[in-house]
Amino acid sequence: VLVTAGAQQAFDILARSLVRPGETVVAIEDPGYPPMRVAFAAAGARLVPVPVDQEGLIVEQLPSDAGVICLCPSHQFPLGASMTMARRRALLEFAHRHGAVVIEDDYDGEFRYDGNPLEALHAADRHDLVFYVGTFSKSMLPALRLGFVVAPAWALPAMIAVKNCLDWHCPSWVQAGVAEFIAAGHLTRHVRRMRNVYRGRRQFLMKALTQNFGRWLSPIPSSYGMHLAAIAKPGVDCDLLAQALARRNIRIHSLRRFYFGQPIENGLIFGYGAADQQQLEQGLVALHDELGSL
Amino acid sequence: VLVTAGAQQAFDILARSLVRPGETVVAIEDPGYPPMRVAFAAAGARLVPVPVDQEGLIVEQLPSDAGVICLCPSHQFPLGASMTMARRRALLEFAHRHGAVVIEDDYDGEFRYDGNPLEALHAADRHDLVFYVGTFSKSMLPALRLGFVVAPAWALPAMIAVKNCLDWHCPSWVQAGVAEFIAAGHLTRHVRRMRNVYRGRRQFLMKALTQNFGRWLSPIPSSYGMHLAAIAKPGVDCDLLAQALARRNIRIHSLRRFYFGQPIENGLIFGYGAADQQQLEQGLVALHDELGSL
Repeated sequence: VLVTAGAQQAFDILARSLVRPGETVVAIEDPGYPPMRVAFAAAGARLVPVPVDQEGLIVEQLPSDAGVICLCPSHQFPLGASMTMARRRALLEFAHRHGAVVIEDDYDGEFRYDGNPLEALHAADRHDLVFYVGTFSKSMLPALRLGFVVAPAWALPAMIAVKNCLDWHCPSWVQAGVAEFIAAGHLTRHVRRMRNVYRGRRQFLMKALTQNFGRWLSPIPSSYGMHLAAIAKPGVDCDLLAQALARRNIRIHSLRRFYFGQPIENGLIFGYGAADQQQLEQGLVALHDELGSL
Repeated sequence: VLVTAGAQQAFDILARSLVRPGETVVAIEDPGYPPMRVAFAAAGARLVPVPVDQEGLIVEQLPSDAGVICLCPSHQFPLGASMTMARRRALLEFAHRHGAVVIEDDYDGEFRYDGNPLEALHAADRHDLVFYVGTFSKSMLPALRLGFVVAPAWALPAMIAVKNCLDWHCPSWVQAGVAEFIAAGHLTRHVRRMRNVYRGRRQFLMKALTQNFGRWLSPIPSSYGMHLAAIAKPGVDCDLLAQALARRNIRIHSLRRFYFGQPIENGLIFGYGAADQQQLEQGLVALHDELGSL
């Protein structure tokens, strides 16, 4: 395990360890998480977007020369799918056959609402090719700047050399404090408690979207996390909507900004990690207003 | 000002902001601080070592195509010279004439023993070409992982983009805590107190080296910091000495390891930041032993 300054530094270290500038093909989910793409682009990767559907990354559409495959199998960002078992097997088989490595970004895997978290892709890896990236930004708080990579042993020496070049190590007593917080069982208790909080917000949001926004939006079912995606009906301009809401001090993301290639779907991403039920309600009232005046 | 995870991340951010891989010539002091070179090498810089003497970096030996010039003007690492005013003026004039930028690494500028700290090179910069790198690793503690760059305004947007790609920001409440520590005057008091502690250790070490090691070593006078360099007389193999002392659990560095090009001088670097007078004494007894049995 290598401790990193959040998932972002994990991506940067992996990019600098695994990418040969101008050569290595890095397959990324599209839509996906833009800051992860930035780290790989900065390292000189040739980024190839791969579409996702309700079963996760479409493995058959991976480029055969992919050297690195980045994905969020537990809870695809931002659409929300959990990758099916069949797809997971196909992905690991593809990577093994093509000599590729897999970066599993499990940014919010602690927050599953339908039973226990799914087993990580990393756990099914028989060929030492999966890098599992975890973070305390969601399970604790982003200001900690603490995450980690569970890496194959063959890759650790290069990753440690990169980490030393970057900043030597993360602040020692932040690491010690989080270790103690985990060892004493506080993190488990905190996650259990917050899972109920987030589940309540999610149910509230899902119900409101289904009951009052059906003319404009179709929420995508998912069982994880702190955000919900909803696909917009034709004629709803989500970029304009997000701008109009920003003027009312309500932050909502248009789905289009998460695409690397040409946007396919049009929609909105609702975050409920930092907004409580009352704030969600205020946001939905404003959104209803704006949609009504389209 | 950009807050960084120690001076090391400042070097990495500067390297990634300022270096065009395979093209940019980066002039470095030789001997110098190896981890700084690593950050620039990783960014694809063409490193050119430049010798130093008792007046600091020898400006006349800078390569005319230097794009970036890295140096420690307050207290050259590891030899200990403070750069003279004439050399400072010549350096800034050279950089301005050749379109180069200067990275001023002021890793221990707070600890001057002969009067107040020298004015930073940055303060004499009339052309927005000096990047001043400071750190709390020496004035407070390395485990903090906190440093900073005072950068020309033109360079900050690129540096902030790099920092975002690396890890977004340093832990928020570590920054807030250090800010409060400074604002309340604790850092000034701490530095003042530690300056006396380090001065005492330094005088003890200097006296012992002069009185008892004159047959083998000539300490280099300097007025800053937490280490002393001593040049070895011919026939003293400092690499072997350092190894022999390591077997006695005493860490001392051979000067040769700080060279990028062919080592010119042979000597030892004595650190007294983490070793108190008693530990220094034990180390010197062991060193005397080893030197006597050469």
